[in-house]
Order: sequence, then structure tokens, then C-alpha cells
Amino acid sequence: MPLLSLKKLDKLLHPDSVAIVGASPDKKKVGYAALKNMILSGFKGRLYAINPKADQYGEIEGVKVYSNITEIVDHIDLAVICIPPRFIPQLMEELGQKGVNYAAIITAGFKETGSKGAQLEKKIVEIAQKYGIRVVGPNILGIIDTSAPMNASFAERSPIKGEVAFLSQSGALLTGILDWSCAEGIGYSSFVSLGNKADLDETDFIDALADDEQTLGILAYLESISRGPEFMKVCREVTKKKPVIVLKAGRSEAGARAASSHTGSMTGEDTTYDVAFEKCGVIRANTTQELFDMAFAFSYMPIPSGNKIVIITNAGGPGILATDAAEKFGLELATISPEIKSKMKAFLPSAANFNNPIDALGTAQAEDYEKVLELSLQDDAVDGVIIILTPQAMTEGQETADKIVELKSKYPEKPIISVFIGGELLGPSIYYLKKHRIPCFPHPERGVKAMASLVEYSKIRKRAAKDDIPRFDVDKDKVITIFQKVRLDDRVTLLGTEAIEVARAYGIYTPDTRLARTAEEAANLAEKIGFPVVMKITSPDIIHKTDIGGVKLNIKNREEALAIFEEIMKSAKKHHPESKLLAIDVQKMEKVGRELIVGSTKDPQFGSLVIVGMGGVYTNYFKDVAFGLAPLSKLEAKAMLEKTKVYTLLKGVRGEAPSDIEAVIDTLLRIALLVNDFSEIQEIDINPFFVYEEGLGVSALDVKITLNNLRDEVSNSQIDINHSC
Amino acid sequence: MPLLSLKKLDKLLHPDSVAIVGASPDKKKVGYAALKNMILSGFKGRLYAINPKADQYGEIEGVKVYSNITEIVDHIDLAVICIPPRFIPQLMEELGQKGVNYAAIITAGFKETGSKGAQLEKKIVEIAQKYGIRVVGPNILGIIDTSAPMNASFAERSPIKGEVAFLSQSGALLTGILDWSCAEGIGYSSFVSLGNKADLDETDFIDALADDEQTLGILAYLESISRGPEFMKVCREVTKKKPVIVLKAGRSEAGARAASSHTGSMTGEDTTYDVAFEKCGVIRANTTQELFDMAFAFSYMPIPSGNKIVIITNAGGPGILATDAAEKFGLELATISPEIKSKMKAFLPSAANFNNPIDALGTAQAEDYEKVLELSLQDDAVDGVIIILTPQAMTEGQETADKIVELKSKYPEKPIISVFIGGELLGPSIYYLKKHRIPCFPHPERGVKAMASLVEYSKIRKRAAKDDIPRFDVDKDKVITIFQKVRLDDRVTLLGTEAIEVARAYGIYTPDTRLARTAEEAANLAEKIGFPVVMKITSPDIIHKTDIGGVKLNIKNREEALAIFEEIMKSAKKHHPESKLLAIDVQKMEKVGRELIVGSTKDPQFGSLVIVGMGGVYTNYFKDVAFGLAPLSKLEAKAMLEKTKVYTLLKGVRGEAPSDIEAVIDTLLRIALLVNDFSEIQEIDINPFFVYEEGLGVSALDVKITLNNLRDEVSNSQIDINHSC
Repeated sequence: MPLLSLKKLDKLLHPDSVAIVGASPDKKKVGYAALKNMILSGFKGRLYAINPKADQYGEIEGVKVYSNITEIVDHIDLAVICIPPRFIPQLMEELGQKGVNYAAIITAGFKETGSKGAQLEKKIVEIAQKYGIRVVGPNILGIIDTSAPMNASFAERSPIKGEVAFLSQSGALLTGILDWSCAEGIGYSSFVSLGNKADLDETDFIDALADDEQTLGILAYLESISRGPEFMKVCREVTKKKPVIVLKAGRSEAGARAASSHTGSMTGEDTTYDVAFEKCGVIRANTTQELFDMAFAFSYMPIPSGNKIVIITNAGGPGILATDAAEKFGLELATISPEIKSKMKAFLPSAANFNNPIDALGTAQAEDYEKVLELSLQDDAVDGVIIILTPQAMTEGQETADKIVELKSKYPEKPIISVFIGGELLGPSIYYLKKHRIPCFPHPERGVKAMASLVEYSKIRKRAAKDDIPRFDVDKDKVITIFQKVRLDDRVTLLGTEAIEVARAYGIYTPDTRLARTAEEAANLAEKIGFPVVMKITSPDIIHKTDIGGVKLNIKNREEALAIFEEIMKSAKKHHPESKLLAIDVQKMEKVGRELIVGSTKDPQFGSLVIVGMGGVYTNYFKDVAFGLAPLSKLEAKAMLEKTKVYTLLKGVRGEAPSDIEAVIDTLLRIALLVNDFSEIQEIDINPFFVYEEGLGVSALDVKITLNNLRDEVSNSQIDINHSC
Repeated sequence: MPLLSLKKLDKLLHPDSVAIVGASPDKKKVGYAALKNMILSGFKGRLYAINPKADQYGEIEGVKVYSNITEIVDHIDLAVICIPPRFIPQLMEELGQKGVNYAAIITAGFKETGSKGAQLEKKIVEIAQKYGIRVVGPNILGIIDTSAPMNASFAERSPIKGEVAFLSQSGALLTGILDWSCAEGIGYSSFVSLGNKADLDETDFIDALADDEQTLGILAYLESISRGPEFMKVCREVTKKKPVIVLKAGRSEAGARAASSHTGSMTGEDTTYDVAFEKCGVIRANTTQELFDMAFAFSYMPIPSGNKIVIITNAGGPGILATDAAEKFGLELATISPEIKSKMKAFLPSAANFNNPIDALGTAQAEDYEKVLELSLQDDAVDGVIIILTPQAMTEGQETADKIVELKSKYPEKPIISVFIGGELLGPSIYYLKKHRIPCFPHPERGVKAMASLVEYSKIRKRAAKDDIPRFDVDKDKVITIFQKVRLDDRVTLLGTEAIEVARAYGIYTPDTRLARTAEEAANLAEKIGFPVVMKITSPDIIHKTDIGGVKLNIKNREEALAIFEEIMKSAKKHHPESKLLAIDVQKMEKVGRELIVGSTKDPQFGSLVIVGMGGVYTNYFKDVAFGLAPLSKLEAKAMLEKTKVYTLLKGVRGEAPSDIEAVIDTLLRIALLVNDFSEIQEIDINPFFVYEEGLGVSALDVKITLNNLRDEVSNSQIDINHSC
């Protein structure tokens, strides 16, 4: 078996030799279409057709037919499989023995059809793994690469050569998009159908395409993400080099249900996708239209260095619409300097609007557009230009398009997006612009959104350059010891003092808290801590302490401590007679601060989510919270906090002093580190969490930590298979 | 002068005789284009050309030229004006003497160019009003009506005949949209350029088009609304008959600035537009694309009776995208009954998804689509159907399109929206669908949004049928008397007790409150009211009472009352030594309830906005408030309250008893009635406003009322002119 190419998946996307297994002379069959597409694609490598009826067929479309892959003497990089499911396990053995590197299984009838299909799929993957064959699919349209060139699919047509790769979990969507793209003039470098993702998935392809020089950007339609943490890790690296744009379907609850019945894949919660994508620099497209409008922008235009744009128009109305959209999507209108204004006044009518959006009026000629565009492109205060044109009596559509194309090659470093509002009259100039690689849209809002995606990517790239995860000096061993004890006790919930010890081991401030098993002990500890104190029931069985009278504040002296210990115990025994591990936490009484909620929860797809937001009684009703995926950088923790409304209050309003925001961020970072170090932490809930004035810190009054259920973990891993239908 | 037609603007949109004033043989001139367009439009009435050089020209394009309108013997319905601005005042006099009904002033160079132009515009309108001529423009592209037919514009082409009217405040946008619409196959009944709206505006045209049988829906691009209250009144009526869809530009702050420099019109706050549109049943399009996608839907499809849809697809992916969009836009996926499922199982493969979205799989033939579509259209539980098709190997695009067209005519009462994902392969079938009046979109999300707009309109129509404004038994005279006294005092702010009297006159509950000018009087009143009481400084000069120690709670007896009176007075005199009208309100101390904010503020465009939301210290930071325009119906008041997050708390959470929601709604209705009866009220601020448990009512503890400044009113009305530039 020869060594795999160093470039990832290179011999899959650019194979030297391809065998179509199941090649057929029947023009209605997939096995015919795949072979024919390979021939038509201009594939320059060796192409083989495999069919048991080799003797009968001789050759198909001029390609010699072999009855079995083992008959071929040369090495095969890629086997494209179009034979019925039941024959595939045997075939995989043969491919393995032959030393084939890649198998693209077009055949359907696996996981998507139910548990029997899922079992067959699993078997195939096992054989593939035994031989080190990487598998695409099953249940795919195929794989197309326009630079190889090769078309190993049964698509009815080939894409135009282009600069973006498109990965799709839906083969049918690919066929539709392909047809539509040809009409719209959108080209692709690679066009990959992911199918059931039994082996290779989106993460593998994104990783591989990062090194593909033909690919300037990666688009994907995904219904699920197979390996959340790996996906994030790969995308974080890839997006430093090129943009990754994902249309994630199954956003809604109803949509998520449809997704799970469709591909048998688990769909995670939508908010987590937003958080995960943001974290690893993936741009999320909201609609199919947006996805492909972005494809245009990233294919043809450079990445701007900032968000300051100029809008040039020959009509006020569309200029206003573009301005509205610019504000909505976070673009800023660049300020036009007095010098540039005076230059424009030399050739534009005095009634023109020299502020941004620059309205050159309906009389604007191609030359006027040219001059204003060049002035804008030369201006250091401008990062990109949107040119709007409406077809008025004196409008020179074609000439204006000419000038835009010229200036684009003269100033290649700044993006230009055009919006030509029209269809028939402006048709030829719109066609001309697209042909010359200027994105052109029929409506202002779409053009602005496309520009905004370029700006979004420029921010991602900048952020990626300077962001890193802080380390703290923590006591990891202490936490390991505590967790071991909890597991030995066959518990998942930590006692109050245990949780506090864990928090302290990671440098999260908690008030002095000790465990007392008798009234006497409680009174002694209270004296040691110093009055006033708080006393709280603690037991793995009791979750809602306050509800059963299990929390008493402001205990001022020894006598009160003795009495209240008994009182709490009595009430706890009444409400939880079965409870064995009853004890009481004695805690220093802290002064009241502003109440936040902080903590973490486990997401099945992407790992641990850290949460921060407004605390207090109505937390659940106002839902003023923000999430971040662990581990967090300081910038990420700060950005999280800034997303909440309570952040405004922390900054200090109505004459109040600002709160200790730094201490909150520090706490978030430490929680993130803790849950990242210990993936067995299912949930952390710090409530109440008090924030004091700037410089005075924070206090985690009550910490709840729950570990994962070891049994749950086992059943979880089975869901993927059992769930399919 | 003949009587105006009873149908509004009928002789403007369907004139019997038209004169082109400024008609020219010069093909580059607007006066030529307008005449030529009238001829080409197929106009069946009498057409006249007017030019001072009549003798020289004789006739233009076969139309006899008159040197002056007065030379024409027949009556003229509409004069289309293309002569320079300075000649127009004299022309208007002539039109008036001749008894012309309508003038469409294409000529630009008026308000949009500055104050001189604005003055000329004003003069023209004055002359027009003297003679009863209604004016369109100036500064317009023209007016086109495809059913008249007539094209009184200088547009380069004519729209296709269609069912929706399009009004636009931007002429250039009209030209672009016209060109684009011809390519897309979108037709129009009327196509109206509103220009500077010196006389006739959007409200006039919407009102007129309500009676136009050719028009099934009205679209508008607006940068401002000239007469807010009239617009709402008219739209409320019109939208009972046909949908009104508005793309309002100038949404953003930056956009609003661009708008004001463009047409010299004032742009109101965007939120108010949302509230106003919702109130009068206008559907707001968010983008140009949406506006025209809706045009397709309303032109071709009936209004559904509910929001339950079926999605039929031959591919899972687009089905999920459609489902996501459906949830986002408030559509429900209809439940497929077991009977229908078993019928589908008779012809679809077992691997098909029989739940909604129904996935007929990639093998679906036209006949399969036909059967599933017919089953859905027959199902009483289904209000509309979205059909998605991707071009797969066995897909029958044209045949499927055929079946859809057939079933549409068989079941005309339910909307069908198609989404054919493709371009070249599916091109002919997409063209066929559009030609046969089936809306067809290339992406699922757009199709779903179009369906959602139909559903939105069905809700508007239902709501319009049953909603009305309640009357209460109020003491209007009392309020008049108080306001007169305030005006006599040359004040705009009411004293606390005055404001409370006004509130009480309108049945808003306030605690017993009396004005005391001496400590003795205060103590006596407190005894009368009953202890404990609250004492508050009252003076037209003091706004922030609490800040100067001007509010004291829980005064328990006569001695305290005497002492606290002096204390408050001393503090008030210290902080406001200039203040003359110092006195103290003595108020019954109410128990604490849940705190809301209620009140009203005046919007310059649409009248008085009523506000409700979360009260308390941080009201301004959480901004949990909702608005409604007065007068309010009970449904509107309830809907307002339901938009706030605090509503969840009012319903009762965490075991708390529900609050008196009915009493809050009652208060909102009474505030709405008050500000509607008295337009001079600038602001009402009730704070704190306490809500008690269900059945225990509410209490307006402190009421501030400010009247408008009579001088402000005068300067306001001048803004429109001075602002233009």
C-alpha cells in the first residue's frame, strides 16, 4: 500500500486513478452517469470501469470494463461505488486487499432507511478502518473537483470552475444549487456531497480544503456536525486562512425534528451552534440566498481592512435602503473629507449629495461614477465601496460597468460590490460585471449584506491573530481527589463544602465555609469564622434548600447558632426523612452585592458552555444571559458579558459606582478552565453570585457542582445508531 | 368645471383626456418621452400636445400641437407637465381657468433643491387649491395605469399588466424596479411616482386604489408619511379589502439622515412606524426583495384562512430549511391525519417521510406530487401548500409544473407557493409556473416568507372585523377646566394634584391626594385621609422630587406630619430658591405592588403613543416596554402588554399569585382615551404605578402631565419647509 499523500485528502479530490464500481451501459443508471461524468470532466488520470458482466460489455463509453477490481494491475486512488448495499462489504474487503485509498459510496439504503441499514453501514466502516480506506458517504451525489478536473457524481451537469468549495449534507440540494449556480454564473472549486458521513465528514473536508490553493472560501450546508470539538478546532485554524460559511439547517424545533428523521443525525440546540460558530470564526448564513450571495463576494473580492464603506448612487431611494442595511449589518458609512468633497464638487452638480451615501444624481454619467469611485478607493478612510445604479434616461449602464471593472484591477486591495437595479435594460451590463468578477445584486440590501460578510471575516481574521486562553495557577489534584471521593460514594452531586473547595482550588472566591455535623460543632465553627454567619442544610438529596427552610441568614451569636442548627435539622428531617447524609454548612455572612448568575452546562455537541447573566428571583423570566464555549479567552469572556443587559448596570448607572467587572471576567475564565480540565463536570451553578464595587471583587456564595452520570455516557454513545429511522 | 368623478382620483388614473404640457419633438426630452409613452400605451381617450412653438411643430408623433392649453375646446382631465419650474405658476392659473382636474408635474427643481424651490412649490399648490386642481408631484417619473391604459411618464418602458399597484417616493427606484419587473414577469395595475408629494400623497392614492377593481394589492416605497393620522385611518379601512405593503426607508439613524437630505421630508422614529403599521394593518416589507416576493404572492394567490401549511418536497434538506423558515415566520406545519398518511403510503415508497414536511423522496414523479398536493388541498386542516422541487435524475419538472397549474384551478381557494431550486434545467418549468400565475422562488426561505405574508394579511383581515375602541364614562369638562387653568398660569406642567384630578376624571385609580400649603393644613388633611400618609413636594419648577428629599413615606401621625412638612419645604427652598408655587401633596400611603411604568408620549407623525412596561429603578436600562398608538382597542392594549417580558411576571411565576392584568389593560385604555380626547397632552408619566393581585386593582401613585408648548407647535409646522436642502 503506497503512502498517503501528505496533502490531506489530496488523492481523493485529485486522484490519479479512479475506478467506477458498478459502471453500467444503461443510461438510466447511476453507474452510467458517474462514468460518463468522469469522462466529460476532462479527467486526466487513469479511469477504470468495474462490472461483473465485463465479458458481456467489453467497454462502456470507450472505457474497458473489468469484472473485479482485483483484476486491475495499477494502483487505485479512488473507488466510486454504485452497486447495491448488500454487495458492498465484500467489495470493501477487495478494495482493502487491493490497497485502494478512498471509497466514495454513492449507493443509498443505509442509516437513512433504518436500523438494518445502519448496521450494514457500520460494518462497511469497520472493514474500511481495518484496511485504512477513507470513505465518503454512503448516500451521496458524488464528488466534483473542477481543478483536478474530475466529476465522480451522477449529477446531471458539471459546475463552472470557480474559487469556492461547497459541501452539502443534502445531495438533492446540491443538484438544485448546481443547476441554479450555472444559470447565475457561480463557479466552484470542489463540490462535495457528504451523505451519511459514516467516515469522512465536514471537518475532514474543511481541514483538507484549507490547503487547497484553488479554494478561496468554503461553503457548507449542514444538518448536523459530527464531531463538535474537532470541528471547532479545525475551523479555528482554517478560518485564519480562508472563510468558512455554514448554512445550518434544523434551526427551529420543528426543523430539528425534520432533520433527525431525515439523516438520522442528532441535532443540537441552535443557540450552541451560534456560540460555537462565533468561537471558531465560522460565518453563519441565515438563508440559502445569503449563502450564495456570500459565495459571490468571497469568490471575487479581497477582504477589507475595516468596516468603513462608501455608498455611491445615482438615486436617493436605493441609497437610503443601502444605508439602512449598512447600519443593520454593522457597517459604518465613511466620513467624506472636505478635500474629497471639493474635488467632487468640481464635476458633480451642486444639488448632488456629497455626504455618504454620495448621490451623484440621475444625470450621473459613467465618467462621474469613475471619478467618485476612484476618489473613494484612494481614500485611506474607506475600506470598501458599494456602487448603486438605477437605469435613468441619461444612465450609461455598460460604460459604468466598464469603469468599475477597470478600477477594480487598478485598486485590487479594496472590495467593490455593485447593485444594478434592473433586469432587461441593465441585463447586459450586469452580465458583464459578473463575467469580470464584480459581484452584482439586484437589490441594495443584498449587496450590503454581502459586503458585511467580507467585513465580518476581516474581523474574524484579526481576532484570531491576538486571542489566546489564559492559564492560572490552580490546584488540579485537589479537584481530582474530591471527584474521586464523590464517585466512591456513588454520587454525582457534590456537597456544598466540596463544591466550594473545588471552586477555591480554581481560584474562585467563596466565603469561608465549614461543614458541621452537630450543633456544638456548628457553634464552634461560627465562632472561628466570626459572626454573623449563614447556616445552610447540605445533603446530596436536597436540591431546593430555601424551600424547606434550610437556609438561615445573619446568625449573630453562639446561642442563635445552636438553636438554628436544631431548627434546620428538624425541618430537613421532616421534608426528607430518607436522607442520611444531613449536615450543615456554616458560612461567613457576606454583604449583599449585585446579583449575577454564573455557571456552566454541558452541550452534547460542543462541550461545556459557560453562562453569565442577570441573577436574582426572576432570572428565568428575563433570560438576560449569554453563553460561551470553554475554554475562554479573556476577549471572549468580556464579549460574553457585554452581550447581557446587566452589563450596563455593572458599568454603573444612575450615579452608582461601577461594579468589579474584571473580577467577573476572571471568574468566568476560571470556570471555563475548570470545566475544560474536567469534562466530567455536567453542571456548575453559582447562585447567588455577588459582584461588589470596582476593586472589591466578587463572592460565590453558593456553588453547586454535578458530575456526569457514568451510565448516561454509555447510553448516549448508542443514540446515534438507535435513533436512525 | 364638471363634477369630479365619484370614484376617487378616477379621472387621474383613468382620464378621458390628457394634455402633455411641454410636449417636444426632441427625442432626448422628457416632453417627447411622455407623449410617446401615452401613444404607445394604447390610451383610448383624447390626447393633446402643448408647446408654445405649436406653429413650428404642427404635430408630434401624429398628435396635433396647441400653443396653449386654453386653445383646446374639450374638457381636460389631466395635464402632464414637463416645462421648466418658473413657468408653472402661470400655467396653473391657465389650467384652473380651463377647469382641468389633475396636474402631474414631472418637472424637478422644487423642494428637493432648497428653500427657493420650496417656495415655488408652495406657490403652485396655492394656485392649484384656489381652482380645486389636485397635483401629483412635482419631481416625478409620472403615472402609469395598465388598465386605463395610459402611461403618462418618461419611463423607458411600460410595465406588464398586473394586479398590484406600486407607489414610490423615489422615481429612480421606480425605473429600476420597472426594468427588473419586466425581466421577472411581475405586472402592475398602477405605477405611481409620488415625488415631492406637494399635494396628493400616499394616503390619497391608497384611498383611491382601494376602489380600483384592477388592483388586488398596494405596494409602496416610502421615505416619509405625510399625514400620519389620515394614513392610518385610510389604511385601516383599505386593509379590510386589500393588502397594503410598505417598504419604509430611513429605518436606521444614518438612513433617516440620508432621507431628510434627499426629499426634504421629516422622518419619524422607526419604532413608531412599526406600531402605526401594525395598528392600521399595513404589512411592512423589510427589504426590496421581500416587497416584490410579496407582490408575486398577493398577485397570484388567494388569502388563506389560517396559518397551517403543508410542505411537500422531493429532498430532505430544502424541506428542513423551509421548516426552519416556517417557524421563524409564524407558520404552523399542519398535522397529517392517519387517513391521509395511509393514502400516501399506497403510492409513495415506504422510506418517504409522511409527516410534514412530506418528503416524497428523489424518485417522486409528477403524479406523486399531484396526488400529495391534491390530498393536502382537500384536507380541511391545511390552509396552504408549499411545493419544493429539486432537479434529480427522475424528476419531472415540466410535468410537475403542469399538475400544480391544474390543481390550482381546481382548488382556487387555497394558496400554493412553489420553490423550484434550479436555474437552467428547471428554467422552462419555472417560466411556465410564473406564466400560469403560480409564485415560484429559487430558495425555500423566500417561498415561506411569501406564504407568511399571505397569512399575516389573513390575520389582519380577521382582526379588523372584530376590533373596536371602548368608550368610558369620563368627565371631560373637568379636564378642560384644569387645562384652562394651567394655560392661564402660563404653565405646561400640571401640579401633582391637578394631574391626579385629570387621571381620576378618566377613571384611573389614584390614592386620595390633597394639596397643603401650610404644615397645619397638611396635618389636618393627613388626619382626614388617614395615617400612614406620604408627603411630596409639588411645584411646576421641580421635576425630580426624590433627588432633593422632596418625598417622605410612611408618616404615621400628626406630629410627624407637622415636622416633615417643614423639613421638605426647607429642603425644597434650599434647592429651588427661585420657586414660588411651593406646596405639598399629602397622599394616602398605599401598600407596595408590582411596579410598572405606564404613560404616553406624543409622536410628531402619528399622534399619541401609549407606553407600558417594567417599572422600577432600572426601567431605562432594561427597556422592557411596548407601545401602542391611541386610541386603543382592548385587543390592542392586551397585545401591547403581552409584548413585554414583565407580562410573564404579571401572570404569576414561582408560585406567586397572578396580578390584576385586567386593571392594567383598563388603565391603558383610559390613558389612550385621555390623550386621544386631548391632543394638547404632550406627555403622561405615571411612576410608580403599582399592580396588585388579581381583583385588587392598580394604583397610580404619582402622575405627571405635561401639555404641549403652544409656541413649539408653531415652529414645528415650519420645519417641513426650512429643513429642505
